[in-house]
Amino acid sequence: MCQSNVYLIQNGKEKLLLEEVILIEFQGKKILLKSIFGEEEIIEAKIKTIDLFRHRIILEKETHSQRN
Amino acid sequence: MCQSNVYLIQNGKEKLLLEEVILIEFQGKKILLKSIFGEEEIIEAKIKTIDLFRHRIILEKETHSQRN
Repeated sequence: MCQSNVYLIQNGKEKLLLEEVILIEFQGKKILLKSIFGEEEIIEAKIKTIDLFRHRIILEKETHSQRN
Repeated sequence: MCQSNVYLIQNGKEKLLLEEVILIEFQGKKILLKSIFGEEEIIEAKIKTIDLFRHRIILEKETHSQRN
């Protein structure tokens, strides 16, 4: 298995969002994270980098430039 | 290391895009894939699923519903 830690970039800082993530699914604009411990997290963000060498997945909040 | 195979869903079928991918970076709408063999692939697609248990990353082509 190859679980990775998922980090979120917020205000220019990296914050650990969920450890030991094994599955990530995209549901529209939302991302569902599942850890090997059965923890789940749903977040509205975009993926920036998936680094399987260092077991790091970096998310960032989408900047809302569109106004409908 | 935890390299995964990257598949692209096209016309409802899964096609192997790049094997042993170790790094994925998002560059706007494009995705840069790098394999442990130094191969690179740039594709305009979205990530559907990252399955680190089965070492599979599934991409799908974006459907262009927006017309500007």
